[in-house]
Amino acid sequence: MDRLESQLKFLIEIDKMKNVQRQTLLADGSRRETDAEHSWHMAVMAMLLIEYAEDRDKIDIDRVVRMCLVHDLVEVYAGDTFCYDEAAKLDKPQREREAADRLFSLLPADQGTELRALWEEFDEAQSPDAAYAAAIDRIQPLINNHLTNGHTWRGGRVKAHQVYARMERIRHSSPKLYEYACNIIEENIKKGSLSE
Amino acid sequence: MDRLESQLKFLIEIDKMKNVQRQTLLADGSRRETDAEHSWHMAVMAMLLIEYAEDRDKIDIDRVVRMCLVHDLVEVYAGDTFCYDEAAKLDKPQREREAADRLFSLLPADQGTELRALWEEFDEAQSPDAAYAAAIDRIQPLINNHLTNGHTWRGGRVKAHQVYARMERIRHSSPKLYEYACNIIEENIKKGSLSE
Repeated sequence: MDRLESQLKFLIEIDKMKNVQRQTLLADGSRRETDAEHSWHMAVMAMLLIEYAEDRDKIDIDRVVRMCLVHDLVEVYAGDTFCYDEAAKLDKPQREREAADRLFSLLPADQGTELRALWEEFDEAQSPDAAYAAAIDRIQPLINNHLTNGHTWRGGRVKAHQVYARMERIRHSSPKLYEYACNIIEENIKKGSLSE
Repeated sequence: MDRLESQLKFLIEIDKMKNVQRQTLLADGSRRETDAEHSWHMAVMAMLLIEYAEDRDKIDIDRVVRMCLVHDLVEVYAGDTFCYDEAAKLDKPQREREAADRLFSLLPADQGTELRALWEEFDEAQSPDAAYAAAIDRIQPLINNHLTNGHTWRGGRVKAHQVYARMERIRHSSPKLYEYACNIIEENIKKGSLSE
């Protein structure tokens, strides 16, 4: 198949990111946000908050922005897995690996390999780029949850210790953002949006 | 105000990009896409199609990706202006300038200036980075319109010559993508989605 044709087929396939609904609501509470919207918001957030990354000198912010844009692509086939749903998380790795095989093979090999590597690096969350991207992936829904009266936490009967555990990724990657996240959690415990 | 607080205020304000509806439908025709979704799609498209840019050597693709992410931000206040609505386009520059004044001033001055400059450069569409970004901004809705039976063209009673005129931006920036766009237009004339 023609190279451009493969690229366009992929680009049309990922339009489905606009149909993958996350648990998180928009800041105004009007509806759930989509994966495409979340990825966009995360990328802009990563751009603007990079100064708070502990490993600033080791981070290539342009790679992080690309990582944010593609980090959830496998969900066009694997669906969004609620981060506090322990049962659904069991087969998440396999579901997402199969989705990656199917999705990235639509692209010409060089680009498929590049995007898959970015996604895998994000998923492992070990490199400085990926650790910072993972921190932003935690902060974005935390803020929207806070603004919508703890909607996701209330609905999922999430406990404060679970949210704290999820924020661990931020602690090492950005102490300043971690402090901000902890303030939000404490405020939501006080308001009753999160139980201890 | 604390620097981080200003940045977060801005990042929360731009959540409204998820409420700005464009004329373009999702590829499956189920609903209109939002500005946040369009910006995300455009950024990924710019990443993957850069090899077709005529001025490839003069383009900083990382800057283009950032430009795609912020190119429609002023619409959180100015709203989306339908590109074939000549009346609405008359006061668009002023509406968008006022929106930019209001929106970018939420950020710390250095970042507000940087993002505003990126948006202005995109809007002028003169630099190689901006010309390529503008071409992608034309191609993305063209594809979705094609996939949804010319929904936007039919609804807006758009003529083929108007679409051709709009695609001029692509001709110089990427002859290969222009050829692809012209094929789509011709097919839609044949199908009756676009009248001559």
